[in-house]
Amino acid sequence: MNQRWSYFLSLPCWIGRWLLIALLTGIPIGTASAFFLMALDWATGTRQMHPQLIWALPIAGLVVGWCFLRFGNSVERGNNLILDEIHEPRATIPFRMMPMVLVGTVISHLFGASVGREGTAIQMGGAIADQWAHRLHLDGETRRILLVMGIGAGFASVFGTPLAGTVFGLEVLAIGAMRYDALFPCMAASLIAHATCLLWGAHHTHYPTAIVPSLSLTPVVAVIVAGALFGLMARLFSWLTQRISTLLRQVIPWAPLRPFVGGAIIAMLIMCVAGLDRYIGLGVPVIESALRTPVPLYDTLGKLGFTALSLGSGFKGGEVTPLFYIGTTFGNALAQLFHQPVALLASVGFVAVFAGAANTPLASTLMAIELFGPAIAPYALIACVISYLFSGPQGIYAAQRVERHKWPGMKH
Amino acid sequence: MNQRWSYFLSLPCWIGRWLLIALLTGIPIGTASAFFLMALDWATGTRQMHPQLIWALPIAGLVVGWCFLRFGNSVERGNNLILDEIHEPRATIPFRMMPMVLVGTVISHLFGASVGREGTAIQMGGAIADQWAHRLHLDGETRRILLVMGIGAGFASVFGTPLAGTVFGLEVLAIGAMRYDALFPCMAASLIAHATCLLWGAHHTHYPTAIVPSLSLTPVVAVIVAGALFGLMARLFSWLTQRISTLLRQVIPWAPLRPFVGGAIIAMLIMCVAGLDRYIGLGVPVIESALRTPVPLYDTLGKLGFTALSLGSGFKGGEVTPLFYIGTTFGNALAQLFHQPVALLASVGFVAVFAGAANTPLASTLMAIELFGPAIAPYALIACVISYLFSGPQGIYAAQRVERHKWPGMKH
Repeated sequence: MNQRWSYFLSLPCWIGRWLLIALLTGIPIGTASAFFLMALDWATGTRQMHPQLIWALPIAGLVVGWCFLRFGNSVERGNNLILDEIHEPRATIPFRMMPMVLVGTVISHLFGASVGREGTAIQMGGAIADQWAHRLHLDGETRRILLVMGIGAGFASVFGTPLAGTVFGLEVLAIGAMRYDALFPCMAASLIAHATCLLWGAHHTHYPTAIVPSLSLTPVVAVIVAGALFGLMARLFSWLTQRISTLLRQVIPWAPLRPFVGGAIIAMLIMCVAGLDRYIGLGVPVIESALRTPVPLYDTLGKLGFTALSLGSGFKGGEVTPLFYIGTTFGNALAQLFHQPVALLASVGFVAVFAGAANTPLASTLMAIELFGPAIAPYALIACVISYLFSGPQGIYAAQRVERHKWPGMKH
Repeated sequence: MNQRWSYFLSLPCWIGRWLLIALLTGIPIGTASAFFLMALDWATGTRQMHPQLIWALPIAGLVVGWCFLRFGNSVERGNNLILDEIHEPRATIPFRMMPMVLVGTVISHLFGASVGREGTAIQMGGAIADQWAHRLHLDGETRRILLVMGIGAGFASVFGTPLAGTVFGLEVLAIGAMRYDALFPCMAASLIAHATCLLWGAHHTHYPTAIVPSLSLTPVVAVIVAGALFGLMARLFSWLTQRISTLLRQVIPWAPLRPFVGGAIIAMLIMCVAGLDRYIGLGVPVIESALRTPVPLYDTLGKLGFTALSLGSGFKGGEVTPLFYIGTTFGNALAQLFHQPVALLASVGFVAVFAGAANTPLASTLMAIELFGPAIAPYALIACVISYLFSGPQGIYAAQRVERHKWPGMKH
């Protein structure tokens, strides 16, 4: 009987313990995300008021590159370092990762690189979570769950999507399977970080609720075909970013010179060709307009090129918001081609290119529901699953494990 | 180069093949669900017009029990048979499962047993899907995916929730993990079956969009505590149904006599005590009213008792709609106790008791979004995850595998 009581108490104790850890990690992560979002607003606003800042982009790249070479060798690998530590623990993630990636990203945005923000959020989350694992002397399995919480909480708070954050943390670790052992901790940390971020007064972009046709054959076929193209676009994005990175490493051995050269090319293009500035920074205004009104197809290619060059040469931030941009504009162009409502394929493209690149079809579908309302749900699910199948054996996170092949004929 | 082309063609071929199989299974499953729903409407309407039909419940039980004893020994185990065949294939699921469970369920509802409908939908889906596996001579792994499609398509079409159906098919197989290899096939079959069911003109219950408070501390704490109680209620339900079944098997060795006795007890109670008829049948009107206005706590216990007696003695149908009833009324009572909005805890209870009993927290959360709108999403996720943790090592499906412990301290 005594044993039975202790068994019944063990679950509330386990939940209480993880709730405490979720508070200890979620509150600082949500706070970091809130200040990060405010800093990004400031950087983007300042850059738009002073377009000449773009001339300093090569210098900014040089400085960020030098700082990471000098002080950040151990944190250079970013998201992949965190995924690796979850799969094969080696050493505590240095706390310096947090300020370095934060400042590096804000500088990248201030001077006009085309980068995102989820990488920063995830790395801040991972670095904060791992400090607790270290300080509280937590064992390996507990630390593993803590790092998943850091990923989920960072993602949830920076995009304002706690459900997508919860599932993203579980889903991003491996391709083809999902384990539930971190479900409660990751959910608690995601919700707490999201609520904390809101309490600080940070605001997320509010997208219009997608008005979409009811489920019928023509739009479904359009979404299936578009889903395959979104997956191939995700594959092209991963390949191009990786290719530019490898090429620059071969040609320019001294790391800080690479973002200098990348920044110089971007600055010259922006200054020489009018209108190219819609491809730098986060690009949220373009995303918002592409959800409603037609945009040209070359918007997709422009953003693809600028982002691959920015990230491949070493600027900091992440891939996800540029992937939203690429997906939304690509879906917008496909809607014109397929004679479908712009809102349908643009909203679906927003999440589906990301689903293919990150190999997270369920988190992306939940994100579509959280951002665009429930009517988009079946279309988003179709496009995300097809894009996930078409995006190839690897995505933007090289450290992601392949648990199962996406389909039986898939080769590595 | 040639090899490369064949590689790129292999994915569209794989998708095309599964789309074809999804059409072959989804259309008949959606059709079966449509006619099942219409038959249920007829049975429920007829029973309400002729309350004296309850006197025939023991005879109905005897007849259904005798039919299953005589012709249905191989299909008696229902949902568990399908789960077993997925984990350890032995023999084709007999097609007779479909008409037998369909007629058995309609008779159960016509004469006033307290049963659900998802068991019937899943078993019809599994039986239909397995006929194709048999006729097309599909290999073991393909057949496994086909059975998952049958489960997803049956669930999706009978409740009108294609996203929840997709994830339910993947999630119900095992506790603590989810594999993605059936993701596309299950999604395709669920959507096709859902669309087919709608095309036949079948209608699903439309619940009011839940108006819930914005995410803040008091309702979150209420939902956490309620979630634990929902999980314990799910555990009580599984235990009681199982206990009554075991007891009746010991006392009454001849199977058809068990639903006769169960039916006789139910009929006598209904006839002797006025007002108890709210606990028989599907109970959709009570669910609808409990989502809006306060109901007494004994509604939960009444439905629990009548359902455990109906299912435990051998009536056909399933557990899920009674679990919705139990969850909604229990949430309703807890809302009065905790001074929270009835809509919040009743909607959350609707999905969370089911999440705990079926061990499907993500499918249940998606179902909440599909039925009650996206505002309920974070509350539903919290309640479903906590209920899943508290519902114990097993649920209503004995054949479900335990892939991982729900939490490290959990014992079998």
